[in-house]
Amino acid sequence: MSNDLAKYIDHTLLSPNATPDQISHLCKEAKENSFYAVCVNPFYVGQSVKELRTSKVRVATVIGFPLGQNLMETKVEETRRAIKDGAHEIDMVINVGALKAGDIDYVTEEIKEVVKVAGNGEVPVKVIIECDLLTDEEKIAATEACIKAGAFMVKTSTGFVKDGKGATVEDITLMKKTIGNHKLEIKASAGIRDAEKALALVKAGATRLGTSAGVAIIRGTTAGASY
Amino acid sequence: MSNDLAKYIDHTLLSPNATPDQISHLCKEAKENSFYAVCVNPFYVGQSVKELRTSKVRVATVIGFPLGQNLMETKVEETRRAIKDGAHEIDMVINVGALKAGDIDYVTEEIKEVVKVAGNGEVPVKVIIECDLLTDEEKIAATEACIKAGAFMVKTSTGFVKDGKGATVEDITLMKKTIGNHKLEIKASAGIRDAEKALALVKAGATRLGTSAGVAIIRGTTAGASY
Repeated sequence: MSNDLAKYIDHTLLSPNATPDQISHLCKEAKENSFYAVCVNPFYVGQSVKELRTSKVRVATVIGFPLGQNLMETKVEETRRAIKDGAHEIDMVINVGALKAGDIDYVTEEIKEVVKVAGNGEVPVKVIIECDLLTDEEKIAATEACIKAGAFMVKTSTGFVKDGKGATVEDITLMKKTIGNHKLEIKASAGIRDAEKALALVKAGATRLGTSAGVAIIRGTTAGASY
Repeated sequence: MSNDLAKYIDHTLLSPNATPDQISHLCKEAKENSFYAVCVNPFYVGQSVKELRTSKVRVATVIGFPLGQNLMETKVEETRRAIKDGAHEIDMVINVGALKAGDIDYVTEEIKEVVKVAGNGEVPVKVIIECDLLTDEEKIAATEACIKAGAFMVKTSTGFVKDGKGATVEDITLMKKTIGNHKLEIKASAGIRDAEKALALVKAGATRLGTSAGVAIIRGTTAGASY
């Protein structure tokens, strides 16, 4: 059994102990299965771009990941370097602490600065708001900040919150409602381990899925993967 | 009951949702209990330095934390900015993937570059090798890299490895043996929740303890804290 989910998938490997060989394997699987992109740490952008240059698979990387409490300048510079290395998409983490403290202006400004260094849309910016740590009110405020700052996508999760649920249909539905007619797509990430869950998230409004279980998902099986 | 452990403690709060108020509380506790330092994310270095300027408590921050798979240049620049903000100590994460792939030269070079931007000892650099992900052979190689690169301390853990044990007496003992007569101190971090464990780690050779349970530790009680 197969399905039509491959084009939604960011094939993801962000483990701190990932080796160049494992990244090569990730890229190979992404090519073989026609996934949308690979998602790797900044250290592996150059290698991934090189290995995928003859394919249509894009290379996404993560910025300020997974804690998001770097200085704004560090996120901007890390983005600049990733793009220089050839990254096609940027998945940045917001400053959840600033959001919790009510400083939505800071959160918005930071997204804006990353979008700016990414060429104001030339390199799409996906914004991880870390739903597992937020109230519904904060999820709405963060999604609105993404719209205001010109982000390409809002993304649910890093996958690094202890005992976090990751992407849920409820959160995608809330994001979708918040976006309304605005131009912002939704990436569901973390905790997606089978086609049933993946399809439910797409039905709710996700146009991208961040998962390490992509191969199992498109085959209609279940993976034990943690992201 | 109290004990003599306060001077060993880096009072630590690295949660992605930590707010300025929580950081203030951390600094207040560090002052009241005469801890060695607070350990905070780069976003909070400026605030912590300001709030601790009339005390002896130092401010440590984390670089490339917790995954360590940033570009070398990003770690160097993040260190430069943290020191500019007033950080007194730097806790950097090595590139575990590079170590796993056998590229100990890269690991050493990266530590060297961070030590260099930190003034070659002027601002002490602690190096997190993430023992939970390493074999004993890799722990030894990483500790030797710290010596070679002129680091101030080798540090066991980020506290962000899923189901990780954090600091263990066995690992401190192995590090101590590896160091021999060389000049490198040891920081035990993560999983230290009571005085008994803290004292065992110090007895094994740790001269610093990274924990969020410092208050409980010096009172001889046990904390439920996760770091």
